Amino acid sequence: MTALNFQVASQVAATAPPPIPKAQAWGRQFPASESTPLLDLSQGVPRAAPHSSVLESLKQASSDPQAARYGPILGEPALREALAFETRVLYRLPEIGDQVQSEDIGVVTGCNMAFLSLLMTLCPPGKSEVLLPLPAYFNQAMSLSLQDVKPVYIPCDPGNKFKASLNKAREHLEGVKKEAGRERQARMIVLVSPNNPTGTVYTHQEIKEWYELAKEHHLALVLDETYRDFVEDGEDQGKRGQPHALFEEPDWRGTLVSLGSFSKGYRIPGHRLGTITASPELLKHVTTICDCMQICAPRPPQLALAPLLPSLRPDLLSSSSQLAHRRRLFHSTVEAVSGWSVIASGGFFAYAQFPQEYIHASSALGLKRQRLGSEDVARILATKCGVVTLPGSFFMPTLGDDEAWDEVVGGEVVREDRWLRFAVANVEDEVVISLGPRLRQMNKLMGVAEEELDQ
Amino acid sequence: MTALNFQVASQVAATAPPPIPKAQAWGRQFPASESTPLLDLSQGVPRAAPHSSVLESLKQASSDPQAARYGPILGEPALREALAFETRVLYRLPEIGDQVQSEDIGVVTGCNMAFLSLLMTLCPPGKSEVLLPLPAYFNQAMSLSLQDVKPVYIPCDPGNKFKASLNKAREHLEGVKKEAGRERQARMIVLVSPNNPTGTVYTHQEIKEWYELAKEHHLALVLDETYRDFVEDGEDQGKRGQPHALFEEPDWRGTLVSLGSFSKGYRIPGHRLGTITASPELLKHVTTICDCMQICAPRPPQLALAPLLPSLRPDLLSSSSQLAHRRRLFHSTVEAVSGWSVIASGGFFAYAQFPQEYIHASSALGLKRQRLGSEDVARILATKCGVVTLPGSFFMPTLGDDEAWDEVVGGEVVREDRWLRFAVANVEDEVVISLGPRLRQMNKLMGVAEEELDQ
Repeated sequence: MTALNFQVASQVAATAPPPIPKAQAWGRQFPASESTPLLDLSQGVPRAAPHSSVLESLKQASSDPQAARYGPILGEPALREALAFETRVLYRLPEIGDQVQSEDIGVVTGCNMAFLSLLMTLCPPGKSEVLLPLPAYFNQAMSLSLQDVKPVYIPCDPGNKFKASLNKAREHLEGVKKEAGRERQARMIVLVSPNNPTGTVYTHQEIKEWYELAKEHHLALVLDETYRDFVEDGEDQGKRGQPHALFEEPDWRGTLVSLGSFSKGYRIPGHRLGTITASPELLKHVTTICDCMQICAPRPPQLALAPLLPSLRPDLLSSSSQLAHRRRLFHSTVEAVSGWSVIASGGFFAYAQFPQEYIHASSALGLKRQRLGSEDVARILATKCGVVTLPGSFFMPTLGDDEAWDEVVGGEVVREDRWLRFAVANVEDEVVISLGPRLRQMNKLMGVAEEELDQ
Repeated sequence: MTALNFQVASQVAATAPPPIPKAQAWGRQFPASESTPLLDLSQGVPRAAPHSSVLESLKQASSDPQAARYGPILGEPALREALAFETRVLYRLPEIGDQVQSEDIGVVTGCNMAFLSLLMTLCPPGKSEVLLPLPAYFNQAMSLSLQDVKPVYIPCDPGNKFKASLNKAREHLEGVKKEAGRERQARMIVLVSPNNPTGTVYTHQEIKEWYELAKEHHLALVLDETYRDFVEDGEDQGKRGQPHALFEEPDWRGTLVSLGSFSKGYRIPGHRLGTITASPELLKHVTTICDCMQICAPRPPQLALAPLLPSLRPDLLSSSSQLAHRRRLFHSTVEAVSGWSVIASGGFFAYAQFPQEYIHASSALGLKRQRLGSEDVARILATKCGVVTLPGSFFMPTLGDDEAWDEVVGGEVVREDRWLRFAVANVEDEVVISLGPRLRQMNKLMGVAEEELDQ
């Protein structure tokens, strides 16, 4: 192959490649059969097809020559209007009032683009840092790396359902306030709720505390709400069922930026649509970036969805309750296997801890390595037992030798590397049930004796 | 409105907003009627609907639940394969051989995204410069500004159909080679052929010279071929009809990056698809960026187009020859009006010079300003005569008071600001013909006497 005769930017060359293809390659090594199929719980994708009315509307819109032309940079006015209406319904805001209007919502080509365009808008490369709870959604960590924005990792506590430590975040911000002439300035705090990868759902009160911290330090609170439609009423987040109450704050536009996706609730990831809800003052700058990045988001799905949103509310509720049922099933199935426990779950994901003994299973496997980490475990689980998950290590930084964990992470406990992310939305109930025998097979392979449990 | 309580990156705040909406707003001020409709020649969009087979295929693909799921980051294998085949046909490459294979082609969400993702891949913010012929496609100039990459503007010569000066580019590169410890390093040369905005088509030989210059200085030659399907056989670019002969170079992957679009040839800008043809070694890094930017390009149009490409060749040829006819019509119509001349044309665009007298038309208009520029002329032409074009100034940098034109531009003549871009692809022949009376009306308004010509 011809060598490149030009240079690649060093921060791009240093960014880890997308990890999902790696996990999926493990899956392809499993000798699947009809009786023991591959169980793919790797990617956070909806299992079911889009609602039939969505498919019908997509069909119409896609074959309309008008939809083949360029549209407005920040989205179809009809869709922005419909989204503002849905937001007011979901967040229990007054129908009349200035809370969330169509001009507060921009439509972009998926929620990753929402995040990256926002990062570009707020964070000058080489001069910024961003508070990012750890474990972190890998595309967010990768985006920071690509743009030479320094992540300040905020540890999440496995003892508290992997909630991020507000105190550590405050400590950091108060510490840097005292440092004069700092090269990098904190620009935003990222919070994902329900979380990817852990599934953790933050309560109203917790989200409010992060908002107040961001406000106090003149930062944007970037709240990634990709999985917001998959929280059960009153489950975790607060007494009134809405994802959070920040849109009730009279000056929310000064601090809050909420990111959303059409990929999960409406089950159309292949059509690529996401949203940014923020001050029009901020969206003005996002528009400049989006013009260079997308010109406009794909038009047919925008035009197809705009008239349907209110009619899809029952479908959202029903998906959410099916998924809640599946998470409970996952919980009971996995916790019935010796040594396994589910530390947190919510939205599309469950974060499960594998048996302590796996770490020292080298001898049972005839390996020379002293300790196995989550990547070893995920690889063995996929290639030998046909269960594809993502290892917790995919959501942790790869640290250079000269970087001390203490300094980067601000906490020891999350580096234990004992967890796997299961995307429970990606499969049917029967697949969740069949995890039981597979995890027992894994235990056997790893030399872990099965306790007698009431199976 | 609530003020933002956080900062926007200074290079984003300093980037000029997208200019097309501004021109379109002028158009809305024109009192259009049935007898004198608004003639919109502002945006480079295809006028006609997509081919009926494309619409039919889009309809099928969009309503397929499988297409609603995520796809591969760099595109559907079937489409990449089909694109490689079409490339070998169009560029007259051997069917068998290693010239252009499917792994050399990545599919992204439009050609702007192709450019931006490439800029991110090659140009570390704050440390890079890019050679950009001037006038420049505004989204490319904006992308540089957003990423804090310094443009080194290479003047195009109005006396030579607005071809970019290879000598000025060489001078710059040889000059900086001698400077030790330079803060910014040149990373790429951008060439757009057929050009946006000027329509200039570079010949095989000219493109080869730019390639050799890039190779000599270890830069990437980024060749934007968005309008490549709209060059007439043998018209300008070389004797064999293909857009250029660089893919015949045995080591093209070391230097060349070719960008393409589905928006113009296949007339589906609203569906958002573009391509990057480059070394797989480079695409590996582009994949990392695309994963964070798009996850995958919209799937339905990829799946819809993949089986159709060979069957659409006659449609491409027919569009191209219709457009060539329209450019000729534009030429004869515009040059028949006193003082107007067409300096360059090709692809979707023609770059026309308005009468010298317009610059000093202040008194005829009752204005106090001494000199009028292309933006004034475009505004008056739109609001008073109902012809929407983009002024040449939209393709020129906005310079701060402390920046000398000589230094930035490296040439005086392009700053004359006497040109308008007409997107001739955007209208029917009858609209082109009706430009004649409108431009005469404009002449009258600007106090320019009409010569007697054989009308």
